[in-house]
Amino acid sequence: MRIAVDAMGSDGAPFPEVRGAVDAAAVRKDVELVLVGDETRVHQALDTYPNRSGNISVVHAPEVITMEDSPVMAVRTKKQSSLLVGMRLVKDNTVDGFVSAGNTGAVMVAARTVLGPIKGVARSAICQQLPSLRKPVLLIDLGANVDCTARHLCDFAEMGMLYSERVMDVANPRVGLLNIGEERLKGNELSKTVHRNLQAASYINFIGNVEPKGIFKGDADVVVCDGYIGNMVLKTSEAVGFFLRTRLERELRATLTSKVGALLSLGAFRRLKKSIDPNEQPGAPLLGVNGTVIILHGSCKSRGVTQAIEGACRAVERDLNDHIRRGIEQLRATEEQLDRRN
Amino acid sequence: MRIAVDAMGSDGAPFPEVRGAVDAAAVRKDVELVLVGDETRVHQALDTYPNRSGNISVVHAPEVITMEDSPVMAVRTKKQSSLLVGMRLVKDNTVDGFVSAGNTGAVMVAARTVLGPIKGVARSAICQQLPSLRKPVLLIDLGANVDCTARHLCDFAEMGMLYSERVMDVANPRVGLLNIGEERLKGNELSKTVHRNLQAASYINFIGNVEPKGIFKGDADVVVCDGYIGNMVLKTSEAVGFFLRTRLERELRATLTSKVGALLSLGAFRRLKKSIDPNEQPGAPLLGVNGTVIILHGSCKSRGVTQAIEGACRAVERDLNDHIRRGIEQLRATEEQLDRRN
Repeated sequence: MRIAVDAMGSDGAPFPEVRGAVDAAAVRKDVELVLVGDETRVHQALDTYPNRSGNISVVHAPEVITMEDSPVMAVRTKKQSSLLVGMRLVKDNTVDGFVSAGNTGAVMVAARTVLGPIKGVARSAICQQLPSLRKPVLLIDLGANVDCTARHLCDFAEMGMLYSERVMDVANPRVGLLNIGEERLKGNELSKTVHRNLQAASYINFIGNVEPKGIFKGDADVVVCDGYIGNMVLKTSEAVGFFLRTRLERELRATLTSKVGALLSLGAFRRLKKSIDPNEQPGAPLLGVNGTVIILHGSCKSRGVTQAIEGACRAVERDLNDHIRRGIEQLRATEEQLDRRN
Repeated sequence: MRIAVDAMGSDGAPFPEVRGAVDAAAVRKDVELVLVGDETRVHQALDTYPNRSGNISVVHAPEVITMEDSPVMAVRTKKQSSLLVGMRLVKDNTVDGFVSAGNTGAVMVAARTVLGPIKGVARSAICQQLPSLRKPVLLIDLGANVDCTARHLCDFAEMGMLYSERVMDVANPRVGLLNIGEERLKGNELSKTVHRNLQAASYINFIGNVEPKGIFKGDADVVVCDGYIGNMVLKTSEAVGFFLRTRLERELRATLTSKVGALLSLGAFRRLKKSIDPNEQPGAPLLGVNGTVIILHGSCKSRGVTQAIEGACRAVERDLNDHIRRGIEQLRATEEQLDRRN
């Protein structure tokens, strides 16, 4: 298997990417990793790991798409950027999957343009596993689409369900709609329409509305929302986590007793931190395009890159895209049958 | 001053309301509190505080609006409910303000119907002070409006600014627009339009987009959003807080060392808990109606009721509604002048 990594994407590029690839290659002897980016800089970074093992090669890409670039313009003009060179490696089947921590908008536009959408899917979507008090919960969409129609959200439900089955090994995943209340008629116009449509789609195990607390309690396996809301919920979670940690640290520093207490509790704090660290998650897959693409946050660390590479490998090993393609085909056929019957 | 309290609103009614009123009356000798609800039940609850001081009276209301009631139907049919009886006391100037932990939708509909909107405000809105690493930040709207237009969000910005000046003593409050990115062109169609409009409103100290982390870092004094988003952000904050606390408790219980550590840190945990407890906030004022109305969460405790009563007193003492009425009038005049000049 071959996985390409955009070496110029993250805020600290190429270091987290190179280190992440080195760590992944050391464990995954069956995988060839292809670092895409400025070859001089990538080789320099690679040279700091003289004892590395595994299989890593470099493909040169002279241009870089930055966080400030307009996605559409950048994809149109920076043909030799690490992002587009990497995406074409997927398109040509030179590699089986691609990981990028670059400009998320540009990754999506590039994936749609170069790889094309899966037939029957109106909009691709970003998903991510969030920690809960039970099993991880898949939230979809996380920001690929900021103005969604009801049709888009139903696509997300279907793709989320297929991902959960195939990659997270959940049988008959419970699909919930993110909303501000559990009652059927809660929410805005969009959420009421989507609720009706998901209720009518008998092939989806729809459990109704799920409030934010339902995500973190693990009340559903897949939670569907429009990308604007999903991104807001994700950013709010991070912000609240940061706020509570900072405030708690202040309070713990306030007295000698609590300083000692904090020292003794250090292991517990570390275990909690690790269990909710986004760098421990297998990245955020972009679903609905013809190819395996995993998105990472620009601020990711090398551990996040390693985990995203592992996420890409898993998606390829499980034939995720084929599963989604066939799944969507079947769902559309079922829909047509149901429509004819009514 | 006289403040009415809906004694039948909260999940545990009438107990948190009665206890909250008793505690408030003990401190606020200048205020007469009027408990509105089933007089037998309210008197029974009051009788459990034989040593109470201060001025508390009871106004009978035989009906109750429940959380399951449809707001519009309930307001139309349950004329003798504690909510409507209380609201009419405000309308008649029998009391100066009203606090309710009842069905939020019904409180809003009742306020709009009985008290009427302030002239020049298209939509009333719920606001609340959220804790931040600096001063508290006012978030508006928190769920009064789930499908907003750009005009509504500009109303919220104006009312939030006037509240922040008058009640939170902030001079020239910094107003931000809640969004998923700080850049001007981030977000969905609604947020782009609102950004343009707030930028053009020279009488608002608009500092641009604010991400969720900006709220908790205290980067703005007032953060404006549509009620669906605001409610989602509030519920996500609560959910993440609950999740982190539960997970941390689990981890702290895992080893003897961390158990001891947790015991020593107890004071710090308690101080943090208190600083973020919604029951320590002065309730959630409903802005934009002709009267002082403070909304509470159905799950509030007596401390929350006491604080909301204090919030109502403060709004009355500061002539908040007059300030908003005159403020909106002036802003509309300024707008017209600017329009004529262009």
